[in-house]
Parts: sequence; structure tokens; C-alpha cells
Amino acid sequence: MKNESLFLSGAKEILSPDSLLTEPEECAPFASDWTRLPGNPSAVVLPKTTAQVASILKLCQNLKIPVVPSGGRTGLCGGAVASKGEVVVNLSRMTQLTPVNVASRTVRVQAGAVTQSVHEHCAKAGLLWPIDLAAKGSSEIGGNLSTNAGGVRVIRYGMSRRWVVGLQAVTMNGEILELNEAVEKNNTGYDLVQLIIGSEGTLAVITEATLKLVPIPKNVSVLFFSVDDLPSLLKLFEIARKGPFEVLAFEFFSAKCLQAVEEKLHRRSRLSRGAEYYVLMEIEEQGRVDDWLSQLLESTIVQDGLLAHSSQEQRDVWALREGITESIALTGPVRKYDVSLPVTRMLSFLGEVLESIRNLRIELFLFGHFGDGSPHLNLVKPANASLEDYEKDCDRFEEKLFHLLKENGGSISAEHGVGILRKNWLTFSRSKTELALYHAIKKAFDPDGLLNPGKVLGQRSPG
Amino acid sequence: MKNESLFLSGAKEILSPDSLLTEPEECAPFASDWTRLPGNPSAVVLPKTTAQVASILKLCQNLKIPVVPSGGRTGLCGGAVASKGEVVVNLSRMTQLTPVNVASRTVRVQAGAVTQSVHEHCAKAGLLWPIDLAAKGSSEIGGNLSTNAGGVRVIRYGMSRRWVVGLQAVTMNGEILELNEAVEKNNTGYDLVQLIIGSEGTLAVITEATLKLVPIPKNVSVLFFSVDDLPSLLKLFEIARKGPFEVLAFEFFSAKCLQAVEEKLHRRSRLSRGAEYYVLMEIEEQGRVDDWLSQLLESTIVQDGLLAHSSQEQRDVWALREGITESIALTGPVRKYDVSLPVTRMLSFLGEVLESIRNLRIELFLFGHFGDGSPHLNLVKPANASLEDYEKDCDRFEEKLFHLLKENGGSISAEHGVGILRKNWLTFSRSKTELALYHAIKKAFDPDGLLNPGKVLGQRSPG
Repeated sequence: MKNESLFLSGAKEILSPDSLLTEPEECAPFASDWTRLPGNPSAVVLPKTTAQVASILKLCQNLKIPVVPSGGRTGLCGGAVASKGEVVVNLSRMTQLTPVNVASRTVRVQAGAVTQSVHEHCAKAGLLWPIDLAAKGSSEIGGNLSTNAGGVRVIRYGMSRRWVVGLQAVTMNGEILELNEAVEKNNTGYDLVQLIIGSEGTLAVITEATLKLVPIPKNVSVLFFSVDDLPSLLKLFEIARKGPFEVLAFEFFSAKCLQAVEEKLHRRSRLSRGAEYYVLMEIEEQGRVDDWLSQLLESTIVQDGLLAHSSQEQRDVWALREGITESIALTGPVRKYDVSLPVTRMLSFLGEVLESIRNLRIELFLFGHFGDGSPHLNLVKPANASLEDYEKDCDRFEEKLFHLLKENGGSISAEHGVGILRKNWLTFSRSKTELALYHAIKKAFDPDGLLNPGKVLGQRSPG
Repeated sequence: MKNESLFLSGAKEILSPDSLLTEPEECAPFASDWTRLPGNPSAVVLPKTTAQVASILKLCQNLKIPVVPSGGRTGLCGGAVASKGEVVVNLSRMTQLTPVNVASRTVRVQAGAVTQSVHEHCAKAGLLWPIDLAAKGSSEIGGNLSTNAGGVRVIRYGMSRRWVVGLQAVTMNGEILELNEAVEKNNTGYDLVQLIIGSEGTLAVITEATLKLVPIPKNVSVLFFSVDDLPSLLKLFEIARKGPFEVLAFEFFSAKCLQAVEEKLHRRSRLSRGAEYYVLMEIEEQGRVDDWLSQLLESTIVQDGLLAHSSQEQRDVWALREGITESIALTGPVRKYDVSLPVTRMLSFLGEVLESIRNLRIELFLFGHFGDGSPHLNLVKPANASLEDYEKDCDRFEEKLFHLLKENGGSISAEHGVGILRKNWLTFSRSKTELALYHAIKKAFDPDGLLNPGKVLGQRSPG
């Protein structure tokens, strides 16, 4: 590290000794994220206060030392990976939560608070921060907001950015931005809260947030269906939108996904008749769902269906959906694409995906958030194909996929973000003008390019 | 106008003759907004397509002619006023609406569509764009989004920015930004949609938007209460948050406001017992509201209360709240402040406001969106005070007010925006660092400062 001794002596003045790690084996757990991309930070700091974050960033700015901010490190694109000797500023020790304000339905939390702990804290007041994602046991609020996390209830509540009132964030030069605090209405200039949310730690380090909460949904049920084909799946979705309930989640997966979960994880579907696709629908009941379901089962739209009332039954159905990623990992090498497109174009898009993959040496595992227009495409190596042939065919498919997305007004990353892994694909989802604006915005916040360098954007403006 | 003949010959190539106005009396209706600040545009163009908007902006960029974008011109801060010979680009002729997409709950609209017409269009599909404001009969979607409009249902749904999926906007150099189109999930870089929303036409001209819709609320009722003091008002709000319903609106006004509405507009409250403050509560029933109300009326929190079930009764209660602005205007000269603060600080803040105004030559009319922490302070000249004394006391009060807001983490503009009128107050709600970032962002979008010049920001960076 450049200026190492100056950094260490400065950091020791700012932090208590247990907040500064320099030994490689101490630093290792903070080097990477769920991508397991290799990292080798020069040091890891674990500040306990916003003032410490500000002082550390200012020190690094003065010494021109690059910084990687991180939280629970559950990211899937390498946004929190420190691969070039950066200093990691990890927020996991800033975990304070204020009491929930029931009248304004808000809670102030520090960035290191684990998502699930925020859920549990708010549940005592009958309220919910409505972002529900698989990583919630480890992911932290700062990371949720930096990546604008989605999850399984986006169809009902939208992404993380909708559930933030105010933000405290620190810029690379150590300025503490106190944005809106707890004020829900503040029409005085450009919305820096929303600009920082989803910027993957490249503009500022989020240290605190005032989160907006909703009442915990009541009368939640889970429905589970088998359907023969994609048009039936869309039809089911359209009918569900008019049902006597609010749809909280509308998840789909292919027969191949269910088969993998059954084989690898020994979980079982309780439907008596299988089919090509399955739908998990979580709903908040507002009327006679039984009647609605009977009518549906008499139609030709679904092959079979069940209503899981008890929480055990509901967990069992969810366990099928939640086991997919793990069971695919146990199947073979995999490439993952988390894409999105208008839900109206899902049919033709998925039809083209299936068509273009047909003669390739790839097994497609198709699942995801159908109701959000956000499918996950997992390409697994068939047992009888060589790794080389599989990789070659993946590359051919990838090119086709990105062009298909562009044609359909879609995105190469629905939820997971850009990080390191997807920054070279950005031109498929963003125009030259957008990218030039990104670079100008980045420069306004971080003129020396020291904050999370090499993430989201390439090194230079495309302009 | 600089380069007038070049502009006119260029504009004539881009627009049909009826889309280019140059005579002062033709231009006059497009010169100003509800502030009635004087305007004198050099020309007004009324494009019918996004391509025309882009060509006109590019022409003006090339000729260095400043542009003021506008829509329904219902703004209250002068954001759409062309006071310095600018060219007005008015979007009111771009009014197309696509059919509502019921499955994705979205609709694509052009910027000139009137808010109310969007409501009516979506209502046919049982859906609602949930921004409901007094100006909805004239305001246009482009203006709603440029100012991040609020309204009476913010407590339930939040501000305009929450209900936008994608945006089409044109930069000053004529680039068409197609941001997200109809994709609800697109985590690929900084959120330019949210950055442009609320920027009051200073970054780009919004031409189209994909709006997110909600089901029209069912079983809507209106409750009306009188309460003795501000602590009771807060208590009522807290209790309402736990009632068997969702609160759609929680509006309050002082006895002085009701008195003005009764005297000037001859409307009548149907409550038998008056008090110091009144509360209009609109709710979506989810249980036994009658029981809840009986219990409340037996407490000491409210003096009196009624439940308006029929739509006529509901309209009558709303007419009291909606008549306040008009009846104040009929009372005398008025200065208006649309401020916000955390709802938890409303009591102490309003207490200090009342205390500090007590010995001043000002009549305070207090009303607004209590549940959002967003009161409207209207300072009216007392009949027995001179205009000079009143103005002097208003200035004294204003200084106190802004400092109070700053101490309470509040904002000098909750909903109405900054425009021309409030740009000199911005430092009370935004730090130097925030303002420096605003200037840098402005420069990235509009380096020559030609788009809505003199709005929101002063001429120079405070850095």
C-alpha cells in the first residue's frame, strides 16, 4: 500500500486497536463477498461511529488510498471485493437501531444492522421494512441500500429505494451528508438520497438510514400451482391480479428446478399432478380465496393447485423455491443471469430464450420473479458435455441474450447490481449519454476515483 | 432574443406553424404559473412529439438560447416562469395515454397529460395513480414529476417519485434519455429517473413516463373531528395509526381556518361542538370503524366527531379543507410557508411557532398535512395593522421560522419546490456540500446553464 506507515499511524489515532486489522488472515474474511472473487485488502477498518468513518475516509483521501466499503458481503457481483490492495471500511459494527416510531412508521438504523434484526425489531411494533431476500440473515441495511436490494416481495412493495426516508452518508473527502434526516417531504433540490441508493458504494458510504415501514400483512396464505406452459403462467398471473387478495410474491420455476430440489435436497412437492412450470403465489387475503381457487382449478389454466394455510405448509412450499440455487450448485458448473424486462414481453422473450438454447450444450434452469418481469437464467453444464464446449455455448448464448434484452427494453441486471462482474455489459442496458452522466456524477462525488474503484463504471468515460 | 432570426427559421423547420407562438399576447398565457410572477418569453413552442422537443432543445443549445419547460403551470414557486426572454417549451399538446396494463399495473403517458385525465383513464381498469392534489384538473404529469408533487394522500402513498417506473427525458443538447422504459427492476448504475424527478426542469425535459398504479382503495370513509389542542391532535394521530383501517389522509386546520371558510365561502361544519383544531381523516376501512369511533368519542381526546359514509357527506367535509386557501386569499394579504419536519417534532415546533408569533402583527392560519409532518403556515395581515408593519413582522417571523426548521431537521419546502421564490432559502435545508454537488450535477446535464436558468440553484456554486 502506498503511504502505508502514514495510513497506519493516522488510523491508530482514529480507531481503537480492535477496529484496525492488518494481518492477512484477519483481513481475509472481509476481502470478498458471495462471488468468492479473490481479494487482498491492505487493511480492514471496523469503525463504530460515523465520525470514525469520516476520519478514515478523509485520511485515505489525503493519502490517495483507495477504499472498498462493505457490510454483510452477500453481494453477487463483487461490489464489496477488495482485489487491489484497497483499505476495506466494513460497517458491521455499527448496528444501532432506534425505537420504532409507530406514528410516522419509521425507524432509524445504522448501516451495519442485519436485515433480519431490523425485521425482528420492527415486528414488535407490528411493522415491517418490506425488503425480504434470501440473504437477510447476513445482509446489512447499508448493503441493501447501496445495491437497492429487491427480493421476493418486490411485486407488492417495490425495491429498497422506495422504503427510505433519509440517509446519512460520508463522501470520500470525509464530509458527512445528512440527507433529509427523518423528513418525509423535502422538495429542495436534487434527490441525493436516491442517487446514493443503488450506487454500490461508489459515491458515498452509507452510515445510517431512516427507513419507512408498513403494517405487517395479515391473513397471508401461500398458493402453489403447476401449469403446462408459459402462456398459462402469464394467464394465471393476469387472473391473480384480479383475485380477492393482494399478491405479495409471484415466483415461478421450471420442472427441471423442482426435480433438482427433489433430488439434491430431498424436498417434495405436495401437488398430485406435476407439469412444465410451477408457481408459488403468496397473497394477503381480502376475500373468499377458497371460492376463487375452486373456480381456477375447474379451468384449464392450471394443472393442479393447493392453498397452504398453516405456517408449516407455507414454509414447505417456500422451501422448494428457496432450495433452487443450492440444488443447482450441487448439479454442476453454472452461469447465472439475473435479467429483467417488461412483464408483457416475458412470453416472447422466454420463448426466444428456449428456442436459442435448444441446440446448445447447456441445461437451462429457469426460475425467478415472474410478476416483476425478472427471471433468473441459470446455465448448467450437462453431464455429457465438456467444460470447454459448455463454456463456448454459454458465450454464444450470452451474446444472443444481451441482444434479446436490448430489443425488449430489458436490463442485464434486475436486482444484483453491476459490481465488477457486470460492468462490461453496462452498454446493453445504458446508453452512451447515460454512461457519460454516470462518469460526471462519479467525478462530482469522488474526483480522484478512490471510492470503490473499478466497480459499476469502467475507468474512463465513454464520451 | 439573441440569434432571434436563426431561432425562428430553425424552429419553423421543426414545428408546424400552429406550434410556434411569437406574438406577446399569444405567449402571455404561457409566461407564468400560479405565482403570477411576471414573465415575458421571447417565443413559445408547443411540440407534439419527443423528436420535436429534442430538435428544439438542440437548436437552442446551438444558439445558446435559454429554455423554460412547462406544463399545466400550476406551480407555486415560479419554476415555470419565463421572466428573462427565454423560449418556453410547453408540453401541453403531448397528451397520449397507452391502454392500462392491468397485469403490471402500469400505464405509459406523455408529459402533457392532465393528472385528472390519467386518473379517469386508469379508473376504468380499477387502478389509480395515487397522486391526488388540488391542482389535478390543470396540472400535468410532466410537471407533477418535475416537482415531485405531493398532495393529500402522501401519508398513504408517498410522493410522486414513488410511482414512476420509467422516464423519457430530453437533455439540453437534444439527447433523448430512455430511462428504464417499462422495466421495474434495473440495478445498472445511478438512478437518473429519480435524479430528474423533482429537479424542476433544470436537468432535462420530461416527455413521457411509465407510471406505477395501485388498486383504487375500497370502503373509503371520511371522519371529521374537533380537538382542543395540539397534544390532543397528536394523540388522535397516534391512535388512528392503530385503528381498524389504513389512513389515506390526515389533514388538520385551526378554528381560524374554519371560521374563514364559513364566513367567506358559506360552508358549514356539521360538528355540534367546535374546538381549537379540526381533523379530516380519510380512511380505507378494514374492520369495525363504528366501534372504534364510539370508543374514541367517549375519551377526552376529541371534542366531537362524525363519520361521513355517503359521498355527498364526504365531499362536504372535504369542501371545508379545500376551501381554506381560497378563503384566506379573500381575507387579506398573505405570505405562505409550506414546511416540513419529523412528525415527532410537530408539537414542540408548532408550540414555538405560536409563541413567537404571539406579539407580532400577523394573523396565523395554520393547516396542512399533519400526518406527514407538513404544515402550511399562512401569515395574513390583520385588518388593524399597516401593510408595512405586517411585512416587517413577517420578515422577523420568517427568520425565526427558518432557524426553527433547521434546529428541528425540517425543510423549507415540503412539496411546492424551490423554483425562483425559495432558492435563496436553500441553505436552511441543504448543506454547502449538498449545494456543491447540486451544482456539479447541473453542470453535468447542462454545462451552459441554458435549461430553466435561475431556478432551484443560484448562478454559482457556493463552493
